[in-house]
Amino acid sequence: MGIVLGPTQYGKAECRLVRIVRDTPRHEIRDLNVSTALRGDFAAAHISGDQSRVLPTDTQKNTVYAFAESHGVGEPEAFGLLLGRHFVAGTESVDGARITLEDYAWDRIDDHDHSFVRRGQELRTAVVTVTGADAWVVSGLTDLIVLKSTGSEFAGFLVDEYTTLPETHDRVLATALTVQWRYGHLDVDWAATYDAVRRLLLGTFADTHSLALQQTLYAMGSAVLLMRPEVAEIRLVAPNRHHFAVDLTPFGLDNPGEVFHAADRPYGLIEATLLRDDAPDPGPAWL
Amino acid sequence: MGIVLGPTQYGKAECRLVRIVRDTPRHEIRDLNVSTALRGDFAAAHISGDQSRVLPTDTQKNTVYAFAESHGVGEPEAFGLLLGRHFVAGTESVDGARITLEDYAWDRIDDHDHSFVRRGQELRTAVVTVTGADAWVVSGLTDLIVLKSTGSEFAGFLVDEYTTLPETHDRVLATALTVQWRYGHLDVDWAATYDAVRRLLLGTFADTHSLALQQTLYAMGSAVLLMRPEVAEIRLVAPNRHHFAVDLTPFGLDNPGEVFHAADRPYGLIEATLLRDDAPDPGPAWL
Amino acid sequence: MGIVLGPTQYGKAECRLVRIVRDTPRHEIRDLNVSTALRGDFAAAHISGDQSRVLPTDTQKNTVYAFAESHGVGEPEAFGLLLGRHFVAGTESVDGARITLEDYAWDRIDDHDHSFVRRGQELRTAVVTVTGADAWVVSGLTDLIVLKSTGSEFAGFLVDEYTTLPETHDRVLATALTVQWRYGHLDVDWAATYDAVRRLLLGTFADTHSLALQQTLYAMGSAVLLMRPEVAEIRLVAPNRHHFAVDLTPFGLDNPGEVFHAADRPYGLIEATLLRDDAPDPGPAWL
Amino acid sequence: MGIVLGPTQYGKAECRLVRIVRDTPRHEIRDLNVSTALRGDFAAAHISGDQSRVLPTDTQKNTVYAFAESHGVGEPEAFGLLLGRHFVAGTESVDGARITLEDYAWDRIDDHDHSFVRRGQELRTAVVTVTGADAWVVSGLTDLIVLKSTGSEFAGFLVDEYTTLPETHDRVLATALTVQWRYGHLDVDWAATYDAVRRLLLGTFADTHSLALQQTLYAMGSAVLLMRPEVAEIRLVAPNRHHFAVDLTPFGLDNPGEVFHAADRPYGLIEATLLRDDAPDPGPAWL
Repeated sequence: MGIVLGPTQYGKAECRLVRIVRDTPRHEIRDLNVSTALRGDFAAAHISGDQSRVLPTDTQKNTVYAFAESHGVGEPEAFGLLLGRHFVAGTESVDGARITLEDYAWDRIDDHDHSFVRRGQELRTAVVTVTGADAWVVSGLTDLIVLKSTGSEFAGFLVDEYTTLPETHDRVLATALTVQWRYGHLDVDWAATYDAVRRLLLGTFADTHSLALQQTLYAMGSAVLLMRPEVAEIRLVAPNRHHFAVDLTPFGLDNPGEVFHAADRPYGLIEATLLRDDAPDPGPAWL
Repeated sequence: MGIVLGPTQYGKAECRLVRIVRDTPRHEIRDLNVSTALRGDFAAAHISGDQSRVLPTDTQKNTVYAFAESHGVGEPEAFGLLLGRHFVAGTESVDGARITLEDYAWDRIDDHDHSFVRRGQELRTAVVTVTGADAWVVSGLTDLIVLKSTGSEFAGFLVDEYTTLPETHDRVLATALTVQWRYGHLDVDWAATYDAVRRLLLGTFADTHSLALQQTLYAMGSAVLLMRPEVAEIRLVAPNRHHFAVDLTPFGLDNPGEVFHAADRPYGLIEATLLRDDAPDPGPAWL
Repeated sequence: MGIVLGPTQYGKAECRLVRIVRDTPRHEIRDLNVSTALRGDFAAAHISGDQSRVLPTDTQKNTVYAFAESHGVGEPEAFGLLLGRHFVAGTESVDGARITLEDYAWDRIDDHDHSFVRRGQELRTAVVTVTGADAWVVSGLTDLIVLKSTGSEFAGFLVDEYTTLPETHDRVLATALTVQWRYGHLDVDWAATYDAVRRLLLGTFADTHSLALQQTLYAMGSAVLLMRPEVAEIRLVAPNRHHFAVDLTPFGLDNPGEVFHAADRPYGLIEATLLRDDAPDPGPAWL
Repeated sequence: MGIVLGPTQYGKAECRLVRIVRDTPRHEIRDLNVSTALRGDFAAAHISGDQSRVLPTDTQKNTVYAFAESHGVGEPEAFGLLLGRHFVAGTESVDGARITLEDYAWDRIDDHDHSFVRRGQELRTAVVTVTGADAWVVSGLTDLIVLKSTGSEFAGFLVDEYTTLPETHDRVLATALTVQWRYGHLDVDWAATYDAVRRLLLGTFADTHSLALQQTLYAMGSAVLLMRPEVAEIRLVAPNRHHFAVDLTPFGLDNPGEVFHAADRPYGLIEATLLRDDAPDPGPAWL
């Protein structure tokens, strides 16, 4: 028996970078959490402790901050491509880079030039993978919390000996969406696509009479694929945040869909992938 | 030596209550985290395990949900007063109640009748204390995250042998505010006050050229006291979320206040209380 | 109407200090989270932004690390006293200091000289308050999670119109204890007291047949006061982590106290204080 | 262009199951967090909202609790296999199941029959995948926090224009390990293997003079593969929890490897896979 070194990667995780654009008195702010990971021929570092082919994670962090100054930070996807291509082109031992970015949104306070308030807990995300001359981009968002107070059913499901759930034709449907989408090419207006996808997700969630969270996710995913030709594939992960109608009959009260307990755990968890039938091969985009 | 039982309280914490108002097709939603705590003569429960004067925490939870149906849930302060007064009036062994509420805000999606999106991580809070016929209300908010990209200094401070901090006349100032305010009376439009206080806090933060976070907090607190006569006292807790300008000189780059590392820990923590010189005694409002 | 500045304090929170004692090849490790807060005459900093009496929080941090080298770090209580007394004695504008410490425990791996494994999520805590020549110490622990699989009842409780809870004479009792104790004097072997109190809390929890969590807390607190004369007062906060027996009758199964759902929220929350009848005045120990 | 439904799965996440074995007065406790996920032909649920092939997540939860009573809960891996095989065998539309388990460890208090204290934040984990007649098991642990106060170097690394890190031959090395290992067959004594792997990981970490975290991980992984023939592959994820020696020279103090700031973010993140050269194909074990 011999031991083989399989896939490895290493990098600097969670560089909290804030970039202020102050070319005019009206400042712009970009607030990112940047993680880098390098792939390549690092067997010696593992097997014998030889670091001569290892670019330190500290250097990767320095590069993030230096590039933020020298190149500026635009859209997360573009900044990720810049970093990923640098690491692959500039370091002989590196043949792949994965840059993961989270983007915190800020709003101006009363349209003030340099005072801001954080928009919410929702994050915009990007994952950029570079290998040699190729690059893949996955955009996304996480923790987009939505709720329908009616217009949601769950009925006609499979019943076995462990099934006790009653059917319902009117329930609360709530979830905290994590969505990621992959592109068919990289000639994309990242900000415009992000805004459009987010609007499509919200609008479809609102307008879909839901027969199941699965169906709602499919509707959201197809709306994006139909309207945004640059998107080749979309993945949705949605915890079903159960809202249980409280039984108030012991207190002589009806509860006509008005009083709910919002439960923590357990929760349903629905995951779905939709893609175009002519979507290009994902390569390492998701890995 | 004898052993004395000092202050005690008990209750049900974190009842996650969602109340839908569906009298018309245009639903309203109230999303609360309600905690109850009762005070009174519970010595027997502690000393001998005699529960005959103890209203179970499960009953307190039931009451929260039942009242949400029978009385509706309006502003958090009003719902807290309703619950607190019920426990004190209705249970002989209870002479005090403390109701703590967190309010999660939702926005309509595209003005939809029954589809909503969570506004952010910021929470509106209320703490209601009832003792006998008296009641105290403290309103507040938590996790309101704000940042100034300039207009903040820190200089002229005390220097001792352990001081290495350079003075600065231009820095990033960022904090996640927790603010609570106590009222001089209870004849208050809770929602209007909340909205006004939040606007005053944000506007003052934006417009104050800051010589220190202490000064900014004082300006915010005084603005509230000056503009809102119903507020008798205000307390502010503000972590100084340090944004350190990254030294880019090793890479031949200037950093003219553009690239920052947003640090996690340690952080400064500033706490301040402001009150009217004629503020009524706080009683148990804060305890 | 005039505006009055009430209580204020400021400091550096969560300095993550690791101190290695390496005088011999057998290293010792102390892993602390240290927060400082200073009180005094800082009105000018708030009102006019004048920092001339303000010792920067950065300096406070530096002092924590410098003292860790020059004085060493022994028990958290002693290190807190050292820091608190320094700030009050060394800075004219400071008349009080509050030092809060969390202590992370490490065990040796196989009795190794310099390799360690973290013991658990439980933390030892200390809060030291210094004002002028006086000092108060509160020791404690947090997140000590305990469970009894039987030997716990809840019955004979008060019943009102919102009570639906059945009585039980055999339930699971589980909690995550936060306990703090105040001393009557400061001539204490901090480590010995901590170990003894922790053992007393665990042993009493185990050996007490519980008629209510209140009674268990009282038994734990009295055991400490009876056995440890240096302890003047003890405060216990205990969430009742409900374990609900799952109804398996729909599946033709009994559940004789064997299968439980461990719920998250809501949870009961019981708080109790016990003290000696001759306990000295707490002063600012808890504030 | 057509839209294709790609991989989907759905289930009930985080069923918090506590199973007490009380056949004798000396109780045993098993405390698990169980998540189920089913795979199969659920296209109709997504595309048209037809639930007739969907076994509700509520039913999956019921099954977890019912099986805990009727079959008992032994080792997490065995319980996962039991559940996974049930879902695949018992439901025509299901052709795959993924059961994920976290195991919380408890110790007896003073060898008490029915009183326990939680061991720590470290979790034992298992992921079981069943497809048709086949099954794959991945065991693991997460949040095993270890530290070496010396015996760790980092030198001889690659240097580029963004490298400022000095070499070091004596540093603190700390990490919170997440480790998972896959088996070559399922005829395994799960508990014995878990205990042995954990001991090997700790012992190797302690005894390896580290030239890099990569090298330490490789040593740990190879020790497991060498000593445990049932393990076919092992994956290690290790954040490098940086401990920065504090510069105390401004205060006239040396810092000979004694005083460290334990930083939060950013952190290095090292990931490695080791496997036998004759390891069987992983199939869906990791997916």
